[in-house]
Amino acid sequence: MAVNINCDMGESFSLYTMGDDEAIMPYITQANIACGFHGSDPNHMRQTVELAKRHGVSIGAHVSLPDLPGFGRREMKIDRAEMANIVIYQIGALKEFLSIAGLRLGHVKPHGALYGMAARQDHIAHAICDATQHLGVPIFGLSGTLHEEIYTARGLQFTPEFFADLDYDDQGRLLITRQHPKLDPDAVAQKALRAVRDGTVLSPGGVENPVRVETICIHSDTPNVLAIAQSVRAALADYLADPTATQTDITGATHG
Amino acid sequence: MAVNINCDMGESFSLYTMGDDEAIMPYITQANIACGFHGSDPNHMRQTVELAKRHGVSIGAHVSLPDLPGFGRREMKIDRAEMANIVIYQIGALKEFLSIAGLRLGHVKPHGALYGMAARQDHIAHAICDATQHLGVPIFGLSGTLHEEIYTARGLQFTPEFFADLDYDDQGRLLITRQHPKLDPDAVAQKALRAVRDGTVLSPGGVENPVRVETICIHSDTPNVLAIAQSVRAALADYLADPTATQTDITGATHG
Amino acid sequence: MAVNINCDMGESFSLYTMGDDEAIMPYITQANIACGFHGSDPNHMRQTVELAKRHGVSIGAHVSLPDLPGFGRREMKIDRAEMANIVIYQIGALKEFLSIAGLRLGHVKPHGALYGMAARQDHIAHAICDATQHLGVPIFGLSGTLHEEIYTARGLQFTPEFFADLDYDDQGRLLITRQHPKLDPDAVAQKALRAVRDGTVLSPGGVENPVRVETICIHSDTPNVLAIAQSVRAALADYLADPTATQTDITGATHG
Amino acid sequence: MAVNINCDMGESFSLYTMGDDEAIMPYITQANIACGFHGSDPNHMRQTVELAKRHGVSIGAHVSLPDLPGFGRREMKIDRAEMANIVIYQIGALKEFLSIAGLRLGHVKPHGALYGMAARQDHIAHAICDATQHLGVPIFGLSGTLHEEIYTARGLQFTPEFFADLDYDDQGRLLITRQHPKLDPDAVAQKALRAVRDGTVLSPGGVENPVRVETICIHSDTPNVLAIAQSVRAALADYLADPTATQTDITGATHG
Repeated sequence: MAVNINCDMGESFSLYTMGDDEAIMPYITQANIACGFHGSDPNHMRQTVELAKRHGVSIGAHVSLPDLPGFGRREMKIDRAEMANIVIYQIGALKEFLSIAGLRLGHVKPHGALYGMAARQDHIAHAICDATQHLGVPIFGLSGTLHEEIYTARGLQFTPEFFADLDYDDQGRLLITRQHPKLDPDAVAQKALRAVRDGTVLSPGGVENPVRVETICIHSDTPNVLAIAQSVRAALADYLADPTATQTDITGATHG
Repeated sequence: MAVNINCDMGESFSLYTMGDDEAIMPYITQANIACGFHGSDPNHMRQTVELAKRHGVSIGAHVSLPDLPGFGRREMKIDRAEMANIVIYQIGALKEFLSIAGLRLGHVKPHGALYGMAARQDHIAHAICDATQHLGVPIFGLSGTLHEEIYTARGLQFTPEFFADLDYDDQGRLLITRQHPKLDPDAVAQKALRAVRDGTVLSPGGVENPVRVETICIHSDTPNVLAIAQSVRAALADYLADPTATQTDITGATHG
Repeated sequence: MAVNINCDMGESFSLYTMGDDEAIMPYITQANIACGFHGSDPNHMRQTVELAKRHGVSIGAHVSLPDLPGFGRREMKIDRAEMANIVIYQIGALKEFLSIAGLRLGHVKPHGALYGMAARQDHIAHAICDATQHLGVPIFGLSGTLHEEIYTARGLQFTPEFFADLDYDDQGRLLITRQHPKLDPDAVAQKALRAVRDGTVLSPGGVENPVRVETICIHSDTPNVLAIAQSVRAALADYLADPTATQTDITGATHG
Repeated sequence: MAVNINCDMGESFSLYTMGDDEAIMPYITQANIACGFHGSDPNHMRQTVELAKRHGVSIGAHVSLPDLPGFGRREMKIDRAEMANIVIYQIGALKEFLSIAGLRLGHVKPHGALYGMAARQDHIAHAICDATQHLGVPIFGLSGTLHEEIYTARGLQFTPEFFADLDYDDQGRLLITRQHPKLDPDAVAQKALRAVRDGTVLSPGGVENPVRVETICIHSDTPNVLAIAQSVRAALADYLADPTATQTDITGATHG
């Protein structure tokens, strides 16, 4: 009966800023930190690890296709061995910053196009496994997809995530959009709550479908992401225990 | 009375080949593996780690300025914190491939322009320390330079290396050249032997200077590098013990 | 008695936004468009050319060192021929977008560290000349520096620019800062006006020095750059003619 | 009754060498010069333009997906406008080097994965047209494919090329391979001659199919490419006229 809130962090690059990590970090429990292949760079990875540490937020590697000019959102034809090596490289880079900060890697989450490719392409899902099976950490993904099936069959931990700021269609399939419009924070929070409490999601057409969720993903590039993060956080905290629930409570750590 | 032979390895990138790693690996004892910032990429790092493992060669991180188009040979003005983070990132990436191969990092060696910058610029030598002090592995460098002084003062292990394929001037200073011409393998081997046995180097003008050496560096881009590696290896093996000396003998591991 | 207002434009990259080009463009007369080596990419170059065209703003190539991760602000040791080729490449890329838009290149301005290097290093100033002498367009620079001397000696047109949003010291030397703080728009406008009208600049300590100016540079990363651009534009327009002065008036095009 | 020989040139990058351009250039009539997105860099583009000029070889832009780490051989999902802008950027960069050398662009040839994508994906073929229609130069491609159809419908010149060093299957379709093995130079020359003279190609299984050819492509990464280039060149020269045929003769320029 516990749930996490994860968000993409550390995507700023060079002199470019992406997202308001400082503002959002207090409201999440898991940070997916970019590893330099779609965003971020050594400076920003270091700073984001330190920021997450200050807030007691668990850190995962947000691994990507090698596509900085496309922010990792362009699918690429890539073979299994190369894909695995690219993921290994990124995870290793992040782990060294974690090691210096005295932290350990909490999870791995494929980013952007790679996330979708792992959900549909057998050899990409296997590449993710090849690259991460020695780590003993969960891989984030979408429940009911090929990657859940393959990760699980390979013996990896799979963490199903729910996208509270995206729509699911009448068949319960996630509708991925490139642009993330401004959303009503309360509506997002209610959607997250329904997923956590009831294990269901409503399509815009009103069809209810079952959904599995261990972590709620919030997109950092939604215009009013901070309000959304606060709202989701508060709703879950209220639900999970009582009005005085703290961050730790949300992850269920103190509820056993 | 032991000495290693180190060489730059794994610098191939994309479809580009640099150096004949397969041929040279049997004759060296330490491989400096490029980490993707001046050469190499995840595929080549993986392959080179496996190649070194097959030959029982110890592996170090050959860390560079972020300069793939200049092969890390263009000096760059870079501040201490950023330089440290760039080095941490590269070391982490390599360590993950080592971890998968069941190996541990053996040393760190700054590459190209970074090597020279660390020998002359206080803040760069400190950045190297900042990035590596938690590792407990030696850093390669040139004896008698600022980086030896700073690394040692900071409590890091310092491994002085001798460049058997480069000239030292009348004052005993290394003459770094961009192009590495074809050399007489016997002459290089004798120079290496003199450095190891007598602790001296002769300038082209015939002036003898003292030199400290724990590892002999061979440049993989010298045209006849294979013949040089074989010759240096054989000469050191003969000297270090007896006609039956093996690779392990050269590193002194069995000589205590 | 005419003067231009130039500003860095088109520095957005991938999904990263830099500067509010749409808002600033109406207030400037010359856009320095990034060419992909410190910022920008083919999409943003295309869009920025079209934006400048809609506002009748003249376009220059904002050429840089090859340093996207450092936004072109890290000095690099680079030889003359390579530097020239790097500049040629960038100019060509921009010119093709201009050609498709039916426009011609208006000027060239070295960006960031390259600007300063051209002002101090003989071989870099010559590289800029080597790369641009066939173009017949002016090169922007700082009056009284080595690059003015070399560009002029080589027969290139030199356009001296005044930085209204930076300080000049008691000797009249520009004080370049990495961070650009929020500034009082009126003060900046008065400083620009004094430079244009009187040909002088006041140091923070109150020392007046002569200054030559044909174009006023406004930094797009100053926090309140839009207010500054509006203020400078209005002050110059008022000064240059009369209350009905239009954009064309400012450049002096209609004043002969 | 004229035919050209084209070959990929200028793919060397940084300190990496790809192909023996100096040796091959005398035997070809059209050089496809890489533009920095799969190979090459400003230095190598400059040098290759000058090399081609010395040999009187016509120059085309070998434009690629943005994929240096994959040498442009990994397909990528990319939209039409972005693809066009990426091609425009590369062509412009090359044209500036041509302009300095007093030369004009001779053709455009998509490289690697982009070549195949243009042959199969409507929006990519259109992007190539969008980027090149103002140039008035031919685009190289494979006869009988979607890109021929679209280029032609859009009013562009289309130059069908024949791959003398690759096999065509029983249906006359090109069999693209990633590795190019060593080949018998005489056999390749005879295949080229048959295509030019008879307009046919034989599959390995002995099936004859019609083929259209205006230029013969030779891959620079076939191990014995120099012998192949010499053999094809000689065979075509002999055929096209008489024993004294020169380079100009091959292109048919003097045969009208």
